[in-house]
Amino acid sequence: MKAYLTRRYMFSASHRLHSDAMSEEENIEIYGKCNNPYGHGHNYALEVTVSGQVDEKTGMICNLVDLDNFMQSRVLERLDVQNLNMIAEFDGLVPTTESLCTVIHDIVHRGFKEAHLEKVRIEETMMNSFEYAGGGEPRK
Amino acid sequence: MKAYLTRRYMFSASHRLHSDAMSEEENIEIYGKCNNPYGHGHNYALEVTVSGQVDEKTGMICNLVDLDNFMQSRVLERLDVQNLNMIAEFDGLVPTTESLCTVIHDIVHRGFKEAHLEKVRIEETMMNSFEYAGGGEPRK
Amino acid sequence: MKAYLTRRYMFSASHRLHSDAMSEEENIEIYGKCNNPYGHGHNYALEVTVSGQVDEKTGMICNLVDLDNFMQSRVLERLDVQNLNMIAEFDGLVPTTESLCTVIHDIVHRGFKEAHLEKVRIEETMMNSFEYAGGGEPRK
Amino acid sequence: MKAYLTRRYMFSASHRLHSDAMSEEENIEIYGKCNNPYGHGHNYALEVTVSGQVDEKTGMICNLVDLDNFMQSRVLERLDVQNLNMIAEFDGLVPTTESLCTVIHDIVHRGFKEAHLEKVRIEETMMNSFEYAGGGEPRK
Amino acid sequence: MKAYLTRRYMFSASHRLHSDAMSEEENIEIYGKCNNPYGHGHNYALEVTVSGQVDEKTGMICNLVDLDNFMQSRVLERLDVQNLNMIAEFDGLVPTTESLCTVIHDIVHRGFKEAHLEKVRIEETMMNSFEYAGGGEPRK
Amino acid sequence: MKAYLTRRYMFSASHRLHSDAMSEEENIEIYGKCNNPYGHGHNYALEVTVSGQVDEKTGMICNLVDLDNFMQSRVLERLDVQNLNMIAEFDGLVPTTESLCTVIHDIVHRGFKEAHLEKVRIEETMMNSFEYAGGGEPRK
Repeated sequence: MKAYLTRRYMFSASHRLHSDAMSEEENIEIYGKCNNPYGHGHNYALEVTVSGQVDEKTGMICNLVDLDNFMQSRVLERLDVQNLNMIAEFDGLVPTTESLCTVIHDIVHRGFKEAHLEKVRIEETMMNSFEYAGGGEPRK
Repeated sequence: MKAYLTRRYMFSASHRLHSDAMSEEENIEIYGKCNNPYGHGHNYALEVTVSGQVDEKTGMICNLVDLDNFMQSRVLERLDVQNLNMIAEFDGLVPTTESLCTVIHDIVHRGFKEAHLEKVRIEETMMNSFEYAGGGEPRK
Repeated sequence: MKAYLTRRYMFSASHRLHSDAMSEEENIEIYGKCNNPYGHGHNYALEVTVSGQVDEKTGMICNLVDLDNFMQSRVLERLDVQNLNMIAEFDGLVPTTESLCTVIHDIVHRGFKEAHLEKVRIEETMMNSFEYAGGGEPRK
Repeated sequence: MKAYLTRRYMFSASHRLHSDAMSEEENIEIYGKCNNPYGHGHNYALEVTVSGQVDEKTGMICNLVDLDNFMQSRVLERLDVQNLNMIAEFDGLVPTTESLCTVIHDIVHRGFKEAHLEKVRIEETMMNSFEYAGGGEPRK
Repeated sequence: MKAYLTRRYMFSASHRLHSDAMSEEENIEIYGKCNNPYGHGHNYALEVTVSGQVDEKTGMICNLVDLDNFMQSRVLERLDVQNLNMIAEFDGLVPTTESLCTVIHDIVHRGFKEAHLEKVRIEETMMNSFEYAGGGEPRK
Repeated sequence: MKAYLTRRYMFSASHRLHSDAMSEEENIEIYGKCNNPYGHGHNYALEVTVSGQVDEKTGMICNLVDLDNFMQSRVLERLDVQNLNMIAEFDGLVPTTESLCTVIHDIVHRGFKEAHLEKVRIEETMMNSFEYAGGGEPRK
């Protein structure tokens, strides 16, 4: 009886898309207005999907309260109402939503043990969303 | 030309999360306010995904009218505007949304033959959703 | 510089529509399935609209944190994950969403003093919403 | 670091469901009101999902600007504010949303080379959606 | 205890924006692609707002079942899955969403007597909506 | 035949809530995390409501194309993908969403003459929205 649970979290953050590995011209060519030096921001909708057997006694895959506590203390507290470029996890990374997915996947995958992490999905705007299901080399 | 069709249905129901297999203290510890004796409720959004070849003549996987008739008479009529704890299918089950997914999957899997059932997904609130794609032992 | 602020809160509750002032037959005729003795439930979306001058120093009508604290302790704590028929404010009232609007309007109007209450709006489902802007006799 | 990007596009179109391969009676039996000779219409929400490695330098799967330009010139310009029955790609096809998925999949699969096309998903209404992930014989 | 009830209905229709009172060039200049001869379409979200005293016995402004029956038989049956240009009410009118609001307002205002009609609001797309609250000369 | 048209626009921006008229401690007390020096951001949904007679010939209050052109060149181009604290209009203003409403109202009120501006409404997040309908002293 393997089932899937998806929990949605909202947070607001700013970012500037800029890569130190590229020239100013390349940055503007690739990121356009998103490269402006003062940044801009989004309301991100973050979805975490976990899976597991439905426990016969409780009828649950895992306790939502535990997932919420983990996400609150380990993810939202650090990202909500912040500038992503200033967060340690983004050192050396361009804070695109692709990167944001891999960073959050890494935190949940390492730290949350009560169900199997299937994927992390983030809506940057109503029109864009990104997913990461792991499988890459973990960052050191 | 295998394609997928997802149809969404809305219904409203109440439930109380309580397991007879646990003590009162355990019930409160695990379900919190959801264990309150008078229950609470939700607007459930139910999504049924079926798949099949796109019929060359009709351009359809299956006729939505048939799926709607099935879901109306076999699922919605029984669950909409009801208390889930009083429904026969939940005898011996805690009416979590995980259980609700498996119960509805079971009904559609056994009864609807015009396309292949892929999964049942239920949004309990805007922030929670659950999926079940089968594969467990059918309940007797 | 009078402006309006609308804050949205989500809660889940169950109710049974039943009036002691009517016979069983009348209750069924008027409320249909909503009169079933075991109740059903909804995810209610509650919107509170307040107005006021935009403060020149802070740029705000009032502090959202204060409104949230008020709503959390005085409204949501009492209604979320509950059966409305068991709440003291609904003694002698049928817990329709119209009544829910007037009950919540009354609580906010009496207790929240940092901005002018304009109206209370509640979505019972995606398809129904109700509004109350005051003006009736306050309940005693 | 394989990730997925889903981009959403909105367009409005009309269609009439009618198959020349069937009699008038069969058409009415299968399509009901959707067979009425003057047609009706929808706001379609189209989602294109592509995948690829997250580029280490840019932090992106592919540039959204490129995908948008492709979709604008090759898909939206041709379908938005049109009658689908009059579009060349639907010659000999009933313009169901299933067919619309396969037609758009075909255009993106052949023409967009900057990331791997995973699937095309279309919401016909808030209550219906369809997906096609390829694998059928390409149309000639 | 005057309160407001808003009920939402969905329907799908096609239309062509074209005025016989203007030349072909003017039609194209004013309506652009919406003037294309084969039409296009939308999923319209229609909201009807009525007001009234909350009945002390029932706790309701009016019975939703009555409003639904009226709207189903008098409005939705006639407009859903149709081409608006072919509907008698639009004779001599360009079927813009402004006109659609006034036509539906007229039908509800004349025919529905169980509560006071406040306004009709229609979302043509997620990005456009129109409202009409009456006060114009009734059409003959 | 006075009717209302509401058009919705999306943009993304960052801001820091900080008033030079207050001490550091007051800023933190009032704005909390929103005062963090590096800012954060939002996807703002902006709604502009205009009213007017429905033109008998065109069936329209005003041409959406004209409103879109105005909003694109005068509002969105300046605010989208920007840091609000760096925009000239916010000199001496804390860039709260209340201020954002009054700034945009001022631009539309002065510049758009094809219909009567009724109000500007902005959703900062799914849970917060603000409205300004004018009536204050215009800023110099």
